[in-house]
Amino acid sequence: MVNVRIALAQVDTCVGDLAGNTRTVLEWTRRAAQAGADVVAFPEMTVTGYPIEDLALRASFRRGAEAALQSIATGLAQEGLGELVVVVGSVGERTTREHDAAPARPTNQAVVIQHGRVQARYDKHHLPNYGVFDEFRIFASGTEPCVLDVHGRRIGLVICEDIWQDGGPVAAMADADLDLLLVINGSPFEDGKVHLRTELAARRAREVRAPVAYVNMVGGQDDLVFDGGSFVVDADGDLLARAPQLVEHLLLWDLPDATLEGATGDASAPAAAIPRTGPEIAPDLDPDEAIYKAVVAGLSGYLRKNGFGSVALGLSGGIDSALVAVIAADAIGGEHVVGVSMPSRYSSEHSKDDAADLAKRIGADYRIQPIKPMVDVFEAELGLEGVAAENLQARMRGVILMGLANAEGHLVLATGNKSELAVGYSTVYGDAVGGYAPLKDVDKSRVWALARWRNNAALDVGKLPPIPESSITKPPSAELRPGQVDQDSLPPYELLDRVLDAYVEHAEGRVELLARGFDPEIVDKVLTLVDRAEWKRRQYPLGPKVTGLAFGRDRRLPITTLWREP
Amino acid sequence: MVNVRIALAQVDTCVGDLAGNTRTVLEWTRRAAQAGADVVAFPEMTVTGYPIEDLALRASFRRGAEAALQSIATGLAQEGLGELVVVVGSVGERTTREHDAAPARPTNQAVVIQHGRVQARYDKHHLPNYGVFDEFRIFASGTEPCVLDVHGRRIGLVICEDIWQDGGPVAAMADADLDLLLVINGSPFEDGKVHLRTELAARRAREVRAPVAYVNMVGGQDDLVFDGGSFVVDADGDLLARAPQLVEHLLLWDLPDATLEGATGDASAPAAAIPRTGPEIAPDLDPDEAIYKAVVAGLSGYLRKNGFGSVALGLSGGIDSALVAVIAADAIGGEHVVGVSMPSRYSSEHSKDDAADLAKRIGADYRIQPIKPMVDVFEAELGLEGVAAENLQARMRGVILMGLANAEGHLVLATGNKSELAVGYSTVYGDAVGGYAPLKDVDKSRVWALARWRNNAALDVGKLPPIPESSITKPPSAELRPGQVDQDSLPPYELLDRVLDAYVEHAEGRVELLARGFDPEIVDKVLTLVDRAEWKRRQYPLGPKVTGLAFGRDRRLPITTLWREP
Repeated sequence: MVNVRIALAQVDTCVGDLAGNTRTVLEWTRRAAQAGADVVAFPEMTVTGYPIEDLALRASFRRGAEAALQSIATGLAQEGLGELVVVVGSVGERTTREHDAAPARPTNQAVVIQHGRVQARYDKHHLPNYGVFDEFRIFASGTEPCVLDVHGRRIGLVICEDIWQDGGPVAAMADADLDLLLVINGSPFEDGKVHLRTELAARRAREVRAPVAYVNMVGGQDDLVFDGGSFVVDADGDLLARAPQLVEHLLLWDLPDATLEGATGDASAPAAAIPRTGPEIAPDLDPDEAIYKAVVAGLSGYLRKNGFGSVALGLSGGIDSALVAVIAADAIGGEHVVGVSMPSRYSSEHSKDDAADLAKRIGADYRIQPIKPMVDVFEAELGLEGVAAENLQARMRGVILMGLANAEGHLVLATGNKSELAVGYSTVYGDAVGGYAPLKDVDKSRVWALARWRNNAALDVGKLPPIPESSITKPPSAELRPGQVDQDSLPPYELLDRVLDAYVEHAEGRVELLARGFDPEIVDKVLTLVDRAEWKRRQYPLGPKVTGLAFGRDRRLPITTLWREP
Repeated sequence: MVNVRIALAQVDTCVGDLAGNTRTVLEWTRRAAQAGADVVAFPEMTVTGYPIEDLALRASFRRGAEAALQSIATGLAQEGLGELVVVVGSVGERTTREHDAAPARPTNQAVVIQHGRVQARYDKHHLPNYGVFDEFRIFASGTEPCVLDVHGRRIGLVICEDIWQDGGPVAAMADADLDLLLVINGSPFEDGKVHLRTELAARRAREVRAPVAYVNMVGGQDDLVFDGGSFVVDADGDLLARAPQLVEHLLLWDLPDATLEGATGDASAPAAAIPRTGPEIAPDLDPDEAIYKAVVAGLSGYLRKNGFGSVALGLSGGIDSALVAVIAADAIGGEHVVGVSMPSRYSSEHSKDDAADLAKRIGADYRIQPIKPMVDVFEAELGLEGVAAENLQARMRGVILMGLANAEGHLVLATGNKSELAVGYSTVYGDAVGGYAPLKDVDKSRVWALARWRNNAALDVGKLPPIPESSITKPPSAELRPGQVDQDSLPPYELLDRVLDAYVEHAEGRVELLARGFDPEIVDKVLTLVDRAEWKRRQYPLGPKVTGLAFGRDRRLPITTLWREP
């Protein structure tokens, strides 16, 4: 026997782009062939993109995906790549009631292609239906395991959630004498998840007594960011190879010849055959770096896949809009960022200066549009006061940004952060307008941390930090009335964020929050604000999930509820 | 043996209102006792309201629900109602892995209370996870059937979806010699569903060879409207009793003494014991009447449960805003409806007259706020043209309505219909602003039908039709540029609505649409519009589902998708 070279193709697909995803599979299979691979594995639902949501329920979509699969098989054979074992994900079909006229139901499928045709199909067994996942809604479960024979080596094939749950196909293969367990994944980024994945794969490796190769997709898809980080662990669970996060990558690894005693788990011996570099282990990212890059990837994916070439946002001089502008500049280039300063009578000089300074540092298209003339005419006509008048100012800015976007074709970015979204500290149809909200799942404490990380990253390479220091250090203010600061109406953000983390992300009750030592008055205030802001959150734009629990489909609560924590 | 009197308490609960729902159970149990009932059955998840979504995942919420259950049991006993068998729904808990330290998972539970304590618990077996339902996300399935003994009669107990799926507890009770199958439900309204429910219950009645009693909740909850229509069918599936739709009601029916040969299925003999009226069979509602009343119920539930005493909306003189205003007047009283005419330079005289006429007919608080001064200053400052200028007008109106609502505390109603929402024929942050959109699931063809139905219903009782005839008959126009009518940019609504019905509600592909004889050019145009408008729909307010497939959680599609029907 010989080594079997495995290529994990960590690619960025697009939902619904059957033709583009087909080209991606062909292109990366060519690269894998050039690197001498015997097997190339692509992520979950490669052909269709992931997650496809209710597109799975359209028969026309499933027919299209099947045709794309066939064209991949044919295309590979025509290019002389028929010898390669190519594993891709797609949507399949399965009749759930064998003796019945029940229509076929979609499945989440891994498809094995070789010699110009489909050689095997595996239907995902465990369907995640929690958090952001709705797979029980759209897919039928598979029932059979799948073991491939590649040059005499036995490769078990499963999909993502199959390794997150006990039982099922992995357990069924415990005594199947596997040489490798191959897992294809569409596992979205969240803070700290890299380690969970590795530990889990290690556990399954010990369960099947074989190495586990894990390939994950990369790129932004609506409110999800897939971070790649594909890897291989040996039968003892030790890390043998790892791809970098948040970029496309081809990770090569040689499944060692099992006849060499002790070769399994020894990375250096068999992998010597990989050209030049040997099996790589990409370094761990610092949490702030990972989150920052995930947000950039989420935004750049949204822009590219939806055909936007530029963004527009309001620049207030504050930290949120500054960070969003820098993220946008990193995603699409500062010259494609339109930053609009929209000062009111309450805007301070330092705010206007900071906005201009930021725009200059990132090379944005900077514009100034005072809102006074609009506010004046609305106030004269409507005579609004108090919060209504504050909201009016924010809505003038929303109208300006949307007008600009409609006229010039930009995507408008909402600059609110997760803390504000949690407590409803924003104006619906005002600062909440936009098609994408990069900081939707980034709380205020993390906003400051990301700003500092980004500035330091610039300093590390000898560049000018993009965010003016005063935007980071000054007290946050909405500047909607004279001398206003956020802390007039909210607890200090550091405290607020800890209460929110316990209440929102960990679903703790009031009793548990008080047991943590939080002040009851603050707890009651925060919980009431969070509960009452649900209707605003529903109309808020999409933004990338980067924590264990994001607002949106990850946390589904009724607007109409009288439940208040006792 | 004697007759067993069954009371089906078709009540309106509120999600999260544990105290209020507890009072409702006590109050209606008293009524049932006064009516001589032996058993009173409440709808699915009575104590918690339904659907509770991710509230199920909060341990504090489950503890609160359990405490409410115990207070119901104690309260009933203290009032001397301990003899009654009371069936309520609530959230339960179940350990899913018996030999494991896994935390308890929530269940959707039917709870049987008698003699001051909980006598039995049944966990829903089939968990709906399609359409608007996410129960697999939040609940663990039950595994055991539940048969009660009431005065020697055997009553099988199941919950809603348990009768919509084959197998499970109903099949398990086929040979259980049941005297009655009792089903407690939270079944949302949709056009035509009444007959589906009755047919299904008839099928299950034949399966268990016993009558089926079906109790359904009533009232609005976010985007759902529960329509009641509780009923009883006999063992042959024939309808014996039915409550009216869309109102709270106590439906009484006597389970006949089985020792009387042939009594089962004979409504007149045993039911003679029910005071005065005998078992009632409420008439079927005409589809337009049912949809109209469902929309009114949806809005009035949203207003009451969220604490709104008034609504505000723009009155353009067109049919959509006229119908919404009348719906609002029926929900909350015309004097609590603020109708704002916001004419532009393109508004016709007849539009302004029709708006004023409508407001007068329903007794609304009518105001006029021309948008010219605001549009003028924005145009002078921004210099917008074309669609951007059209959107600007709509956004001025949105800002005015929101300002009014912020200052005076109204709920703003969006007046768009399902056809517009489908093709994106609206301005985000303009006419799309609001907290609730009564016509969100009512297409334009149905808008006209409901308007006519409502006017005729007024005529039938000798009243003035609320909607001016010219609002119904004139060609629809957004009046955002001179002489504009909707048909400049859209196919005729009658045709558009048929294409949308096939593409959206029945998920047909382009091939199927062409096979129906639709013009390819129109099909391509409509499909493109629908696919591109998803991001607008995401930010649209809630509105009541009244069809088989509403936009929102009933139809979950990515914003980012390159899929176009081939």
